[in-house]
Amino acid sequence: MTQSTFYAGVDGGGTKCRAELYDAAGNLLGAGISGSANIARSGSVARESILASVQHAIAEAELPPETLANTAVYAGLAGANVPSAAGALRNWQHPFQQFHFTSDLHTALFGAHGGANGAVLVVGTGSCAAALVDGTLVQYGGHGFLLGDKGSGAWLGKQAVTHTLEALDGLQEFGGLAKAVCQHYQCHSAVALVDKLNHASPGVFGELCPLILQLAHQGDATALALVEEGSRYLSAIARQAMGKSGGDLVITGGVAGALAPWLDPEVQAAVREHQFGPEWGAILLLRAAQEAK
Amino acid sequence: MTQSTFYAGVDGGGTKCRAELYDAAGNLLGAGISGSANIARSGSVARESILASVQHAIAEAELPPETLANTAVYAGLAGANVPSAAGALRNWQHPFQQFHFTSDLHTALFGAHGGANGAVLVVGTGSCAAALVDGTLVQYGGHGFLLGDKGSGAWLGKQAVTHTLEALDGLQEFGGLAKAVCQHYQCHSAVALVDKLNHASPGVFGELCPLILQLAHQGDATALALVEEGSRYLSAIARQAMGKSGGDLVITGGVAGALAPWLDPEVQAAVREHQFGPEWGAILLLRAAQEAK
Repeated sequence: MTQSTFYAGVDGGGTKCRAELYDAAGNLLGAGISGSANIARSGSVARESILASVQHAIAEAELPPETLANTAVYAGLAGANVPSAAGALRNWQHPFQQFHFTSDLHTALFGAHGGANGAVLVVGTGSCAAALVDGTLVQYGGHGFLLGDKGSGAWLGKQAVTHTLEALDGLQEFGGLAKAVCQHYQCHSAVALVDKLNHASPGVFGELCPLILQLAHQGDATALALVEEGSRYLSAIARQAMGKSGGDLVITGGVAGALAPWLDPEVQAAVREHQFGPEWGAILLLRAAQEAK
Repeated sequence: MTQSTFYAGVDGGGTKCRAELYDAAGNLLGAGISGSANIARSGSVARESILASVQHAIAEAELPPETLANTAVYAGLAGANVPSAAGALRNWQHPFQQFHFTSDLHTALFGAHGGANGAVLVVGTGSCAAALVDGTLVQYGGHGFLLGDKGSGAWLGKQAVTHTLEALDGLQEFGGLAKAVCQHYQCHSAVALVDKLNHASPGVFGELCPLILQLAHQGDATALALVEEGSRYLSAIARQAMGKSGGDLVITGGVAGALAPWLDPEVQAAVREHQFGPEWGAILLLRAAQEAK
């Protein structure tokens, strides 16, 4: 008898990992949240986060910890589109009844339009867009913190820190944004900022996102320029995805709602509510793929 | 008897580490080159590089390996301005007779003007400028690969890769620069490029610098825009340093010569030949500091 008693859908991003636990009839039993699950940044951290989120969902459902071995886990994970990271995760000696994964983009997109053609724009710690075209995913952006992810929370934060370092060097006006960055990290010299942030995770830069958005709303020119530059890029990848799918656009991720007012009018006009969240999208997509085998 | 028989001056940058071995009379006996010595990126790699460069210099001088224990090493190291990195290196159980270090910027600057007031602009894998004012160093830039180092070889390379990823997504024209980047890394999709470069060292991005400069010379608009943006920043930090020191400017580092024609005319006009290299600068600066104790 190989059928699972429980199903966990996992949505693993750069900052947090969220699991939803369902019974075989599709009733939501509980949810759990843990830390980063970007497998291209750290496979070991991601594995811990996936496990912890499912354990928390099982605990919230008031089920015994041993339920883990009787749960099929279907995960959408940031970084799963990077072949070396995906290859490493396939060798995981996981404690679940089953474990299947794809990119967080794929599960978000599949859930958003209930498996129909459509586009999604994800803006959280990272950023990307994608189109679902007759079951095939086409991705735009999603190149990671170092090389891309423009418009994301981490990118906005990193740009704000770079601006602050230049302001501390006297190359830019030391205005409201630079002051806010120094205050947030409690660093008042370039050396202290670099020492604190040189090896920091994208999430640490993403912490700045709310204050950058607040300053942009207040009309701070530097914050506004960053938000506008990021939003231009996000509109561009969203347009590519919409053009490819010919469908509607769902926007998702921790920063998407706050940035929506800055997206191009044509992009804003295409935005629809999602049908399902990424956790249920993961279960629908990956369970169907498993059953087709 | 604590006096050393030999002195090694070490110039440790983000890509290579170079040691010069001198006798007590100041005669150059040999030189040695090894890999990266940026202590803020990896203390263990930097320690290996410092050791290897001095060993190579001893070998080139046709002295026995045991000379190491009779050699006082004075090093200027990239990343030494980062307090946590410098703190870690101070605990090194090194095999030398003595070991002292400061930032590569400090030794380059001290050597460049023979200890007199002046400014330096360093452009190699990273970038920074500094002023020496009555023995005190004031730094501009030098914020590292993630947060700054604009105009450096690694920054130019990273910007070229980001451009290429956007071109592969259809957001930019897939022109000469994008083609050259794909060919250099033998990657012909965004996923392959991200997989190859997501965790790559700054030096791997710096590999692109010669082809970016070549394309800029040929009038490629994208390459030219990158070189001009980088050079504007380099001119700005050089002007800050020149204003502070009131002195001449020495430019140094593997990329400085190639970028010099793009610097502001007033910055170009201030450029002078260096008096001493950073290796001898390290010996002069740190030996004087030791003897003053």
